[in-house]
Amino acid sequence: MINKIKCNIAKDTSFPFNNNASFCIGTGRMGLALQKAYHDQLKMVQDEIGFSHIRGHGLFCDDMAIYQQYEENGVVKTEYNFTYLDMVIDDYISLGLKPFVELGFMPHKMASDTQTVFYWKGNVTPPKDYEKWANLIKATLLHWIDRYGLEEVITWPFEVWNEPNLTSFWKNADMQEYFKLYEISAKAVKEVDSRIRIGGPAICGVDDERWLKEFLSYCSKNKLPLDIVTRHAYATELPDRVGHYDYQKLRAPEVFLDELKISREIIDSFPEYKGMEMHITEFNTSYTPKNPIHDTNLNAAYTARLLSEMGDTCASYSYWTFGDIFEEQGVAFTPFSGCFGLVANGMIPKPTFWTFSFFKQLTGSCIARDKNYILTKDENDVIRGIVWNPVEEIHGEADIDLSFQLPLDNGKYVIISKLVDENTCNPLKTWLDIGSPNYPSEKELALIKSCANPLTSTQRKTISDKKLDLSFLLKRNALLYFEVKKIHPQVDRGFQPERIQGAHKLETK
Amino acid sequence: MINKIKCNIAKDTSFPFNNNASFCIGTGRMGLALQKAYHDQLKMVQDEIGFSHIRGHGLFCDDMAIYQQYEENGVVKTEYNFTYLDMVIDDYISLGLKPFVELGFMPHKMASDTQTVFYWKGNVTPPKDYEKWANLIKATLLHWIDRYGLEEVITWPFEVWNEPNLTSFWKNADMQEYFKLYEISAKAVKEVDSRIRIGGPAICGVDDERWLKEFLSYCSKNKLPLDIVTRHAYATELPDRVGHYDYQKLRAPEVFLDELKISREIIDSFPEYKGMEMHITEFNTSYTPKNPIHDTNLNAAYTARLLSEMGDTCASYSYWTFGDIFEEQGVAFTPFSGCFGLVANGMIPKPTFWTFSFFKQLTGSCIARDKNYILTKDENDVIRGIVWNPVEEIHGEADIDLSFQLPLDNGKYVIISKLVDENTCNPLKTWLDIGSPNYPSEKELALIKSCANPLTSTQRKTISDKKLDLSFLLKRNALLYFEVKKIHPQVDRGFQPERIQGAHKLETK
Amino acid sequence: MINKIKCNIAKDTSFPFNNNASFCIGTGRMGLALQKAYHDQLKMVQDEIGFSHIRGHGLFCDDMAIYQQYEENGVVKTEYNFTYLDMVIDDYISLGLKPFVELGFMPHKMASDTQTVFYWKGNVTPPKDYEKWANLIKATLLHWIDRYGLEEVITWPFEVWNEPNLTSFWKNADMQEYFKLYEISAKAVKEVDSRIRIGGPAICGVDDERWLKEFLSYCSKNKLPLDIVTRHAYATELPDRVGHYDYQKLRAPEVFLDELKISREIIDSFPEYKGMEMHITEFNTSYTPKNPIHDTNLNAAYTARLLSEMGDTCASYSYWTFGDIFEEQGVAFTPFSGCFGLVANGMIPKPTFWTFSFFKQLTGSCIARDKNYILTKDENDVIRGIVWNPVEEIHGEADIDLSFQLPLDNGKYVIISKLVDENTCNPLKTWLDIGSPNYPSEKELALIKSCANPLTSTQRKTISDKKLDLSFLLKRNALLYFEVKKIHPQVDRGFQPERIQGAHKLETK
Amino acid sequence: MINKIKCNIAKDTSFPFNNNASFCIGTGRMGLALQKAYHDQLKMVQDEIGFSHIRGHGLFCDDMAIYQQYEENGVVKTEYNFTYLDMVIDDYISLGLKPFVELGFMPHKMASDTQTVFYWKGNVTPPKDYEKWANLIKATLLHWIDRYGLEEVITWPFEVWNEPNLTSFWKNADMQEYFKLYEISAKAVKEVDSRIRIGGPAICGVDDERWLKEFLSYCSKNKLPLDIVTRHAYATELPDRVGHYDYQKLRAPEVFLDELKISREIIDSFPEYKGMEMHITEFNTSYTPKNPIHDTNLNAAYTARLLSEMGDTCASYSYWTFGDIFEEQGVAFTPFSGCFGLVANGMIPKPTFWTFSFFKQLTGSCIARDKNYILTKDENDVIRGIVWNPVEEIHGEADIDLSFQLPLDNGKYVIISKLVDENTCNPLKTWLDIGSPNYPSEKELALIKSCANPLTSTQRKTISDKKLDLSFLLKRNALLYFEVKKIHPQVDRGFQPERIQGAHKLETK
Repeated sequence: MINKIKCNIAKDTSFPFNNNASFCIGTGRMGLALQKAYHDQLKMVQDEIGFSHIRGHGLFCDDMAIYQQYEENGVVKTEYNFTYLDMVIDDYISLGLKPFVELGFMPHKMASDTQTVFYWKGNVTPPKDYEKWANLIKATLLHWIDRYGLEEVITWPFEVWNEPNLTSFWKNADMQEYFKLYEISAKAVKEVDSRIRIGGPAICGVDDERWLKEFLSYCSKNKLPLDIVTRHAYATELPDRVGHYDYQKLRAPEVFLDELKISREIIDSFPEYKGMEMHITEFNTSYTPKNPIHDTNLNAAYTARLLSEMGDTCASYSYWTFGDIFEEQGVAFTPFSGCFGLVANGMIPKPTFWTFSFFKQLTGSCIARDKNYILTKDENDVIRGIVWNPVEEIHGEADIDLSFQLPLDNGKYVIISKLVDENTCNPLKTWLDIGSPNYPSEKELALIKSCANPLTSTQRKTISDKKLDLSFLLKRNALLYFEVKKIHPQVDRGFQPERIQGAHKLETK
Repeated sequence: MINKIKCNIAKDTSFPFNNNASFCIGTGRMGLALQKAYHDQLKMVQDEIGFSHIRGHGLFCDDMAIYQQYEENGVVKTEYNFTYLDMVIDDYISLGLKPFVELGFMPHKMASDTQTVFYWKGNVTPPKDYEKWANLIKATLLHWIDRYGLEEVITWPFEVWNEPNLTSFWKNADMQEYFKLYEISAKAVKEVDSRIRIGGPAICGVDDERWLKEFLSYCSKNKLPLDIVTRHAYATELPDRVGHYDYQKLRAPEVFLDELKISREIIDSFPEYKGMEMHITEFNTSYTPKNPIHDTNLNAAYTARLLSEMGDTCASYSYWTFGDIFEEQGVAFTPFSGCFGLVANGMIPKPTFWTFSFFKQLTGSCIARDKNYILTKDENDVIRGIVWNPVEEIHGEADIDLSFQLPLDNGKYVIISKLVDENTCNPLKTWLDIGSPNYPSEKELALIKSCANPLTSTQRKTISDKKLDLSFLLKRNALLYFEVKKIHPQVDRGFQPERIQGAHKLETK
Repeated sequence: MINKIKCNIAKDTSFPFNNNASFCIGTGRMGLALQKAYHDQLKMVQDEIGFSHIRGHGLFCDDMAIYQQYEENGVVKTEYNFTYLDMVIDDYISLGLKPFVELGFMPHKMASDTQTVFYWKGNVTPPKDYEKWANLIKATLLHWIDRYGLEEVITWPFEVWNEPNLTSFWKNADMQEYFKLYEISAKAVKEVDSRIRIGGPAICGVDDERWLKEFLSYCSKNKLPLDIVTRHAYATELPDRVGHYDYQKLRAPEVFLDELKISREIIDSFPEYKGMEMHITEFNTSYTPKNPIHDTNLNAAYTARLLSEMGDTCASYSYWTFGDIFEEQGVAFTPFSGCFGLVANGMIPKPTFWTFSFFKQLTGSCIARDKNYILTKDENDVIRGIVWNPVEEIHGEADIDLSFQLPLDNGKYVIISKLVDENTCNPLKTWLDIGSPNYPSEKELALIKSCANPLTSTQRKTISDKKLDLSFLLKRNALLYFEVKKIHPQVDRGFQPERIQGAHKLETK
Repeated sequence: MINKIKCNIAKDTSFPFNNNASFCIGTGRMGLALQKAYHDQLKMVQDEIGFSHIRGHGLFCDDMAIYQQYEENGVVKTEYNFTYLDMVIDDYISLGLKPFVELGFMPHKMASDTQTVFYWKGNVTPPKDYEKWANLIKATLLHWIDRYGLEEVITWPFEVWNEPNLTSFWKNADMQEYFKLYEISAKAVKEVDSRIRIGGPAICGVDDERWLKEFLSYCSKNKLPLDIVTRHAYATELPDRVGHYDYQKLRAPEVFLDELKISREIIDSFPEYKGMEMHITEFNTSYTPKNPIHDTNLNAAYTARLLSEMGDTCASYSYWTFGDIFEEQGVAFTPFSGCFGLVANGMIPKPTFWTFSFFKQLTGSCIARDKNYILTKDENDVIRGIVWNPVEEIHGEADIDLSFQLPLDNGKYVIISKLVDENTCNPLKTWLDIGSPNYPSEKELALIKSCANPLTSTQRKTISDKKLDLSFLLKRNALLYFEVKKIHPQVDRGFQPERIQGAHKLETK
């Protein structure tokens, strides 16, 4: 079955499109940022995509060793240790990243209870003493200002805690207690410098409307500092857990996008918060690090749709996460473990890595946008587009034949395309084909990586009737980027392609 | 038109095949080895292919600055300067290369006349004073032994001069004068250490039979040192020169190979030289650095045939040359100038780069060989093959459908293939498509390079009847490498591919 | 006060000296080997010194995630995860290191009790089920053999547990329980391959004589596999703990060395173990990671004495540790925290780094050795020496004037020296001078590092009476390496040093 | 003999000082910029010092291959080849450098005569056809604008030819012909873009006053474009040539500086040119690449004086040259050949390398300046100084005891010093001591490099009477950089230096 889609683009059309895809990226707990493999994966992401900010959990967890107590003359005193924190933030900065700071979780010596979340045991209970918590925040900020300068630190957004609307992340999902935490944290931040932007409630999509309304009401009523609103969004149903893996059903992208619109409307319904930036500080298809969908081409194609529309409501949307050094459910047993990353362990870019790389290229104004494509035109009249064909049915076949008619000046053009589909750029398939080795050798990794790049093609066209007809056949779960650019061919003296044995024909009409 | 070729391989077949493809590689004049771009291209070649030796002209040319004269009290004296030579050889060694030393050309202060060859003006006349020439050779060898150790230097083969059978390379192509040069050079070398291997006559395919016979007779009669015989071989007719380019007709590969067989027979006809190693110290399709055929996929496919059979007669065959930093006819005006290299300027691997990379993989015994393919099996029963389809007619179409039946144990297998054809790995096409810019920008180079790698694919097969049917459709000028390897799939606990949204079907029968 | 020491060396003198200084180096827990800073420090050590093996704790601790349990149909089952282990050992191998494997500590799910050691909480209790322990060992070894090959793995020495003679490292320091652990571990290892070398008892210097005798008797009586004997050795008294620091008194080096001799004698008193290799799998001056002595020049000079004599009794002696990424007592608050490393955090080589670098140079036979010096002569008659002057008294002054008379052929010589003393190579001092910043900036680190290299000097001497008088003035805690080498000066044509404005006088008699 | 110099600095003193030391650096002919060793040396210079511009000869020389002719239908036509030029300028830009463009020398096919300069044979005769010369300039500029953008290219200063006042550099040193060349070149440049800055006459110190006056008169009278005035300056008398070396006498620095003042006055005497920037596009002590003075510590100390005062009259002063890949008098036979570079072949920084590194540090206002020192204070009250003691007499001894009294707030300070003198940072000495090997091995180079860094020391001082007394003993030819900086010591909990065995005493009063 081939689905035919046509799109004629008129000369001065324009569509809404805010390309915030590379503002922020997610990461596993901060302690992992000390690891070499983490650094190498993040560097690979930054070299190709170049995100601006990075956000993850665990700033105040015990493995970062910041909050310390000691006894002196029978009195318990506090001291702070920034040795590891400096290593992490120095490294981020060297990679061109600023932290999007999540204030959490609780140092166990400051915690009021013992409840933890994850394999790595983050304490998720309120502080025994809120003053100590405020002091910890202030000490950390002051240390950062000392090391990186105030002008730098005020460009880092701050967010209070993570998903307090879940009992697993915040004891009893106690809303009033969270508001208290927010209030004290936000005031502590502003005490250091009023220009530092702070926000919450960092909720996920469970009882989210009520939480958001109550949170905004509380802030409004108490005139709390609030600069940004943050939440999370995932696109799957509940998982069926088998061994190391979770299987889930993907929701329609519209369902996902509508959830954000509702949040947007709630915010805008408060006059004092109307238009305030909403940041999606986590999003992905599945919310478990054990769903192999993350490793597929479907994930890349599905995410493309999200990136083309999330900017309608959100100032940023942080894909959870950049890489697979991640320990929330333990250490992965294989390189394709269904973890969140854009990069699999072994330095393998997954298909979705390219979705972000492609969106990074889109600049200028949007000249076409629909469920399966988006096109932009820049100030030099270069047209760029991304097209995609997610097929959610397992082993389902549903090719799309996408045709565009572009209005263009006459002249010679090159069309450059980069194809990511199940045959050309599918490292999961290669790994399976070689026997899905748990611990691949260096040689096996090299092979897998050689199957993890887009297939780039070029084509020359001469336009003499002011329009270009372009068409792409997208197989299931294909993602394709293209560029249409005017060229001014140069011909070196004596160069006659038609006389070269082995030369191809220059232009196919 | 599709040409069908079938090949059933019986269990214990074996074919002759000496894989000497990576023994030696050619290079432009030695002075260019000081350049950064030369080093970078050579490093790229060594990282992927890893040749053992490197041979080129110009060791004693003026730009290397080795031979120096000065006057003292009215007497002209000699001194040697090894500053640049050390830089070059140190760099070769750091890249895993040994020199295959060509003794030539003549320092102009030692030359008997002014005739030069090439844009870079190598003097091609006999020495004024043969004793000074012998001294120069000895001084250079002694310096090398001092710097690199005798045990290392005796692994470097030596050859006297270059193509003395052409008037452009040796004044008047004077045979007797060459024999004199050979005699004095060979004795100088042996005087330093008798284990150093020396040879000649380094001729190309012009009047070559007579030259070879006379040379061997002369050596034999005069009991000269002779350890290896060297010659060159190219596969094209005379050029038609237009602007910066030369257009020529390629000869059939059989013509090329037969020329070598005749040389082999001449050598073997001398009882004392029977079986002596013959080294092809230069070969390529075209012998001019201005024929764009070098940049094509045809060149890659055609060369594959040569590499599969040249070992029948030759101990080595040095592709002329590794890269396009080369000045024999001046400096190239564009990155695809028809120069000899495996790598084009701008660090672009040409299709033929992959021919050598693929042959490097062939190990073990040969189980099939014909005009369009060669297959080997190694000690672990891994089968590797290369298949090719050169189409010499310009714009000619002639696909090949190649089928193999391989005898294999039952079990699960992966087939890995790497395809280099005009659509998937054709940087010349990409460059033309973007308007053949004379001086491409970094971004344009990145695009061209992204179109210069083989398309790697994998496929799983279960064998239950002791044989595997494999087939490849080769379009014009395609080159393909494949590997058939037994696998022992591992399945992580709970991993169920058939439940993953976005997963492909594992095995296509 | 200057202490004068003279040493006249006769022509054919020779002294015992086994230079095993670079056989093995210590490391913090294996989980830290995932860190980037750990890798960078270890690379620095390997680039300069190049140890052969590395040994540390924590192979089986929970952060390495190897031992895993899961429930299936109500039954608890075991699975192993080698993802992190591969990262660590791959990295070691890429740095030229083999593991000297310590089998320990106990995965908490396999442990019989909850007692832990260190900030990082290594479980130090026997296994609940010794069969599971044996299986864990065998599974790990088999995985290694699969990944690295049997021939490689049999070159890795194995040792059972760490310091079982201390209650902090082994519950109740229960000797019989340790013997059981040893027996089962050793047999498990030999079951995989009988060539893998295994040993114990890995004790420190507490009740060590009794432990060693009993252990050897037990092995002997029960005919247990035993290939090497291992123990630890430190040179300080009990600490006085103040804040983050421990202050201790250093023992005389003779006391330290005598302890090893006694162990040697105990081993040799068993006929079946006479001459068996004794490996000191940990040694250092102080045994706490909070004693700033590790960061001093005294430490470098004191260690030199140990390295010059430990080879008399031991096959190896593993300095504890290579770097300061180390968490036994928590995370260091400053770069000079008194931790064990040769390298301080921030990539700063400490003075003792150079002690090992210098000993690495000593090759050939020993021609002089005493409390403050050691000299060797190699097969090319190059004489190398190390001299040192440890002054244990705080702020004590006690310079040494060391004079050697060396028997040498007449001719020209160069004397090269590398000085590490409190003025020239003392990063601790630099750090203190700039205000001992807890978290130094990159610029401050650059300054500290520029004060952490030896001062290299050269001097020319002409010998005409067959001997060279050399003398060195060593200030307190100085360490100096020197080399005496014959030279054959070359003089370029026209080079006249005495005519150069700004040239120094060539040779000072 | 010790010369005592005292300098009491009052609180608000200020001295003139324009620190233009790192605006421009010199280089050998542009063709050498293709070499790897050239690139490596230049990268070393840029990493440590970071010049803004680079100037050298040979842009239009034949080895750059820019100007090309060919015949078509019997007509000689012109074409340009920018392949090598792009490699060079791309590399400069990647190293943070802009060209300071010298327009010259003459492509031999465009030249009116055959006279050449240097071993590398730059043609120094006027063009046969000035229109072709203008076209060459314009084509080159337009290519640069195409590749690098107009906004970039207008930041590159241009200069017409090199030292036309010498017969060796300009046929007959024909002044009127030079004015013609200048006029046509300057107009060609301005035709491309009027904002590009152009200047001349690029003369050296021979008959320079007359040349400068005539040049400015000519420009003025003919209303020629003129944006900057350029000249050269060297500080030595005529050489005595012996073998590969030249020996010369250094002039007093005052003589050198006065020559520049006269030029300045001549420029300022023209009302229309008053205050116009004067650029010294070449300077050094000796003007021959064979005078070993360049390799000495005297050169470093002498140059310091020049750098402290040249900014009084000049907008820039380009040290001739950054490295020793240089061929004007042939290829050097040894690494210390008396060539101009800051870096000797083999990647060895010479003492003068550090002079430039030190001057790069001087920022803020000048608070003291005299024949042997210069001090600055920045906006954070950090005081930096450079002191020097050049002793021109061969083997002369003349130490200086330099004392400063600095007005400072009370508090704790660190004094950081970096010493470059004949004992601590003298690679020439090391090379001589090891026998001055013509072609040092990698190991010998490592040794030499380990003797080529400043000796860095630090010292703490407490000031309680508002002033700091500092003194430095400078041995012959010493150069020293220092920094005085307030510190705010941090003391980690429990850190008690006085209890550490092996710790030094913190502060020496």
